[in-house]
Amino acid sequence: MNIILLDQQDFTSATEVCIRGLRASHINTVLRATCGDCLKIGLLNQQLGSAVITDIAANAITMVVTLTVDAPPPCPVHLVLALPRPKMLKRIVRTVAELGIKQLTLLNSYRVEKSYWQSPALRAQNIDEYLRLGLAQAGDTILPQVTIEKRFKPFAEDRLPALAEDRLAFVAHPGVSTVTTSNVNADMLLAIGPEGGFIPYEIEKLQASGLQLLDLGERILRVETAVPYALAMLTRGERVR
Amino acid sequence: MNIILLDQQDFTSATEVCIRGLRASHINTVLRATCGDCLKIGLLNQQLGSAVITDIAANAITMVVTLTVDAPPPCPVHLVLALPRPKMLKRIVRTVAELGIKQLTLLNSYRVEKSYWQSPALRAQNIDEYLRLGLAQAGDTILPQVTIEKRFKPFAEDRLPALAEDRLAFVAHPGVSTVTTSNVNADMLLAIGPEGGFIPYEIEKLQASGLQLLDLGERILRVETAVPYALAMLTRGERVR
Repeated sequence: MNIILLDQQDFTSATEVCIRGLRASHINTVLRATCGDCLKIGLLNQQLGSAVITDIAANAITMVVTLTVDAPPPCPVHLVLALPRPKMLKRIVRTVAELGIKQLTLLNSYRVEKSYWQSPALRAQNIDEYLRLGLAQAGDTILPQVTIEKRFKPFAEDRLPALAEDRLAFVAHPGVSTVTTSNVNADMLLAIGPEGGFIPYEIEKLQASGLQLLDLGERILRVETAVPYALAMLTRGERVR
Repeated sequence: MNIILLDQQDFTSATEVCIRGLRASHINTVLRATCGDCLKIGLLNQQLGSAVITDIAANAITMVVTLTVDAPPPCPVHLVLALPRPKMLKRIVRTVAELGIKQLTLLNSYRVEKSYWQSPALRAQNIDEYLRLGLAQAGDTILPQVTIEKRFKPFAEDRLPALAEDRLAFVAHPGVSTVTTSNVNADMLLAIGPEGGFIPYEIEKLQASGLQLLDLGERILRVETAVPYALAMLTRGERVR
């Protein structure tokens, strides 16, 4: 945690918060903070700032909060991700928030095992927790929107064309990139398949909805490596050349 | 595992291998292969190819091997990494191999806890195992070289200048990038600090040895996110624009 992420319901008055649980124990045991210490904080979907500890106990910490700066600019990429294995989902959702992505669609695909859709990791409460871990790591406050799409075809045919309209839209796929130009940092959309990749039928559907092929290279990357790698390709290549 | 990585000592004749242990159980339980099946394989530090299973038992699999194609081109970046927490080291070493990095230096830094250097994860045998997992994931065979540098100053003063000479060399550091140009895919060197970053003294030393500052963005990324992100910035930005 590089910031303590606060919630509207943590506030006990206009400027005072009282926090408990994981965040309180982090302040006590990792930061080893004491009364009077100043911590970096952020208010969910609001600004970042500082908080001074006014009272500290094992599991309840009171602080006076001052919000001063805006959250960093969002990553302009809507990420469409074939639902990963539950074990990986937690890490990937956290990484998505960490990278500043604000729109995440979790999509079914032929190679996504049906059982993955039953995982407790997909419950809204757990997704919310993983997202907050990513925000607290990155120093961001704006909670990403997560959409669940359990059926590939209606999503690809009915909703994807509008999402891909008027923006650069890609699907990560080995082979020749059909990408010829990119307005770096314009709005974009990127789809990344499951382990083993999208099947040819799915690739065709995605292309028909306006997605270009984006080759990530000769190596087969795990999804958790492919996500930061592809985002940097799309949004940060401009700055180093 | 996207390939089964073979070793010279797996060979029982010029073209036949017999493998046991983790790889055999992967073939049996994950791939559910049977006699006559053809698998993607690679020979360590040699070519990639295919193998046909000629005999299969619970924990010993015999295959006839044909090597046909070269390993993918290496990632041209020498990565200098402040030693991560043992728990993260395994994942990061695997990711380094997955991304095709062939030179990894694990470096001490003021903010690296001394106890990390005692971790079993650092033993050559374990590092080797993590690297092989990354190669088997990516479909690569060339084992990265890993160098351990337990003292920051002698490395930064005596050895880094030669490593940084005649190539673009960077240290990931928040703030303004001093990078003005990059011959994408030329040889490069990239240093990434520990959690909390390199201290100012260390940044000065690294700059004095020829490293330019590279800003990864406003967000504070975990090392395991920063590695693929920074590598794509340095080597892949050129291709999408």
